[in-house]
Amino acid sequence: MKAVTLALLALTSCSAFAQSADARVQALKEVGFKTMGAYRLLDELSVGIGPRLSGSANAAKAVEWGKATMEALGFDNVHLMPCMVPHWVRGDVEKLVMVDSSGNEIPLTCCALGGSVGTPEAGIEAEVVEVHSVEEGQKLGDRARGKFVFFNGPMDPKFTSTFEAYGNAVGQRASGALTAAGVGGVGALVRSMTMDPDDFPHTGGMRYKDGVPKVPGVALSIVAANKLSAALARGPVKVRLKLECQTLPDAPSANVVGEIRGSERPNEVIVVGGHLDSWDKGRGAHDDGAGVCQSLEALRVLKTLGWKPKRTIRVVLFMNEENGARGGKAYAEYVKTSGEKHVAAIETDAGGFAPRGFGVSFKKNRARFLDKWLPFLRPFEIDHFTPEGEGGTDIEPMGDLHVVLFGLEPESARYFDYHHSDKDTIDKVNPRELQEGALALAMLAWLISENGL
Amino acid sequence: MKAVTLALLALTSCSAFAQSADARVQALKEVGFKTMGAYRLLDELSVGIGPRLSGSANAAKAVEWGKATMEALGFDNVHLMPCMVPHWVRGDVEKLVMVDSSGNEIPLTCCALGGSVGTPEAGIEAEVVEVHSVEEGQKLGDRARGKFVFFNGPMDPKFTSTFEAYGNAVGQRASGALTAAGVGGVGALVRSMTMDPDDFPHTGGMRYKDGVPKVPGVALSIVAANKLSAALARGPVKVRLKLECQTLPDAPSANVVGEIRGSERPNEVIVVGGHLDSWDKGRGAHDDGAGVCQSLEALRVLKTLGWKPKRTIRVVLFMNEENGARGGKAYAEYVKTSGEKHVAAIETDAGGFAPRGFGVSFKKNRARFLDKWLPFLRPFEIDHFTPEGEGGTDIEPMGDLHVVLFGLEPESARYFDYHHSDKDTIDKVNPRELQEGALALAMLAWLISENGL
Repeated sequence: MKAVTLALLALTSCSAFAQSADARVQALKEVGFKTMGAYRLLDELSVGIGPRLSGSANAAKAVEWGKATMEALGFDNVHLMPCMVPHWVRGDVEKLVMVDSSGNEIPLTCCALGGSVGTPEAGIEAEVVEVHSVEEGQKLGDRARGKFVFFNGPMDPKFTSTFEAYGNAVGQRASGALTAAGVGGVGALVRSMTMDPDDFPHTGGMRYKDGVPKVPGVALSIVAANKLSAALARGPVKVRLKLECQTLPDAPSANVVGEIRGSERPNEVIVVGGHLDSWDKGRGAHDDGAGVCQSLEALRVLKTLGWKPKRTIRVVLFMNEENGARGGKAYAEYVKTSGEKHVAAIETDAGGFAPRGFGVSFKKNRARFLDKWLPFLRPFEIDHFTPEGEGGTDIEPMGDLHVVLFGLEPESARYFDYHHSDKDTIDKVNPRELQEGALALAMLAWLISENGL
Repeated sequence: MKAVTLALLALTSCSAFAQSADARVQALKEVGFKTMGAYRLLDELSVGIGPRLSGSANAAKAVEWGKATMEALGFDNVHLMPCMVPHWVRGDVEKLVMVDSSGNEIPLTCCALGGSVGTPEAGIEAEVVEVHSVEEGQKLGDRARGKFVFFNGPMDPKFTSTFEAYGNAVGQRASGALTAAGVGGVGALVRSMTMDPDDFPHTGGMRYKDGVPKVPGVALSIVAANKLSAALARGPVKVRLKLECQTLPDAPSANVVGEIRGSERPNEVIVVGGHLDSWDKGRGAHDDGAGVCQSLEALRVLKTLGWKPKRTIRVVLFMNEENGARGGKAYAEYVKTSGEKHVAAIETDAGGFAPRGFGVSFKKNRARFLDKWLPFLRPFEIDHFTPEGEGGTDIEPMGDLHVVLFGLEPESARYFDYHHSDKDTIDKVNPRELQEGALALAMLAWLISENGL
């Protein structure tokens, strides 16, 4: 009898839970789809302001916009959290040409990688040696001396998530210049981190190391990379590179913070956020205007609904994700001394595409209990939690402080078609997909706020 | 002990199954992602040939192309299956204007709905009455007499799948003219079946009924519909409509059929297909060039891999899905008399977007066993089967013949942005998303072929 009673109780509670999900979902949809609020905000940020590389005038404008927007939306405790950021500028000239044996110049579409040193005014002219990975580059030895090392390993479409393909290839961009210099090379030419075979170069971060000469790093468009590779297959190739980029002294900037104060446990915090800075190519629409605007919209919708979360739900618009993560580090420092208990942090920095799941830092067994929340999330196309999944670069430092990290996982197929390039503009964003992600974030934040973790 | 042994056996078998899945998946990915074959085919069909409305010269070209492609790919038993199709032509003129009290004309972007009658040469000028559903239109009574009925019910973004939103609104397009005529109206002006607020009208099928006068039906762009609605809010509005469309006698056409013959049970058939015809707006890239090319590519990849399916896997490129489904009906007639056993039919006609699931005609309990196939399908982003799901218009007639129906369910957010409009062109298709769907189809067809249902 006892087993039967328990089973009946379970059924009843399950059904009550399902009913509660239905009511919450309907209410959230009703308000959330009345306007495509996230898209309106994205228009202000990505069209109205535009690209916003850390340290730039546009980044400062974006900080002001974020604060003014939160204030206009009536968030609690709106403020800036200052941090210093790297200040790299691209300059006016970035030019790469293949030089044939008669001295004819064939242009190759390229752009400097973020943080790269420039070249002397006359440029650097040298032969090219092609490899397909960092490891292959490291093994070049003397064959690289005095040459450009051309890292031409493509992103592999066999990975189900394009983020895995990116993770597998992006070492060439991050460490290409370092690797080239390590074997006596004069610079790194890196195939863009994309599968879209067109003529747009995709920039992104790269690093230097003390004690290793700083040589320039540039991204080639896929068309340019294929052209260069084809020429190399026919015989030795010289290229000439000219770049005017440089790194200026660190500049002051800030995270933007606002919240809905918790009604029962205001001192327990759930962070929802994306990053306000972007690269200087394109207009940072998917990366990460989408995440910024979804985070703001998630709170706007919760406020409009009048749901009073038990715990504080806080939006943080992080500064400098792209080339330093200084905003994320500054926030983690704040967490250590705030006296608040940070329950969870949710990042949205994987594009404004249709939601599919949430990554969570829990291990598999610990994550399983989250599945009971899926009835609240499936209507926003979230059908799984990925254990040991990615949170995001901005919130990662909070992981070391025992904060549970979540990352929105949207459909990934197109993200790297646009990522860090002139193609990352608002016309690549679908208003309904973007909004659905905002509503999924709102629901997850609310579930954590009500139930804890 | 027995329980433990059984559990161990289950584990072993489960693990063997998982290993088998891994090997199959890796092999399919290796060959399937080497080239983006489906996209290459789509370029031939949607760019090389273009729109292919039933009865048109382009539709005939598409039939020839389908047959030649199957032959070039080395499919078995390639042949045409003739059927007669409706032959409607749009004509050169389709013009709708609002006429203000001073006689000024404000143009409203529109297109005739497929199958509509034209207007007299002078056009039809009449006042407009606005409703938001077929039901509301039916209740107009005398208020509609001599007027255009303007069906302005929008697709509701609250539905998780946009196909549900479409299903909920599309009655206005299908039955608008019939409804208008039923209450004495002179024609139907229908808000386009889309959520994309731009100035492109979206055509689509509509029907007449014996004994009810045939009045014209047109689709208005969202911009035009909003403009007309705003004008009506200010006072009575007259419009003038001129259409030159007409229906010609039925024309001969055909389904295109080819297959990989089953190695053990050749007489048992799994159909994979999409529809070769399209509307005359745009170029039928997503609808349903995507499905046609995915079906062809699925078989090409299976052939390239050298997998010998036990049962016959057959591609059918159906003719006339858009305005008559004559090809689907012809194939179902064939099934009745073929002497073959049709095990399953899988349709792909929901756009070339990233796969999410498969609909299946099984009821919930019966469908559950399919979940054990998910390890083979998740790497192609299929993470569920939807019981009592849609197959597709072309294969629906086979459902009555006890054939199990499956329908590919891709991400739906953008489909109706392009559907049946000039925007349905190949630049809206992502090569990797399209290919992933082709590989999901290949795997499902192969699983059914090996395991039965």
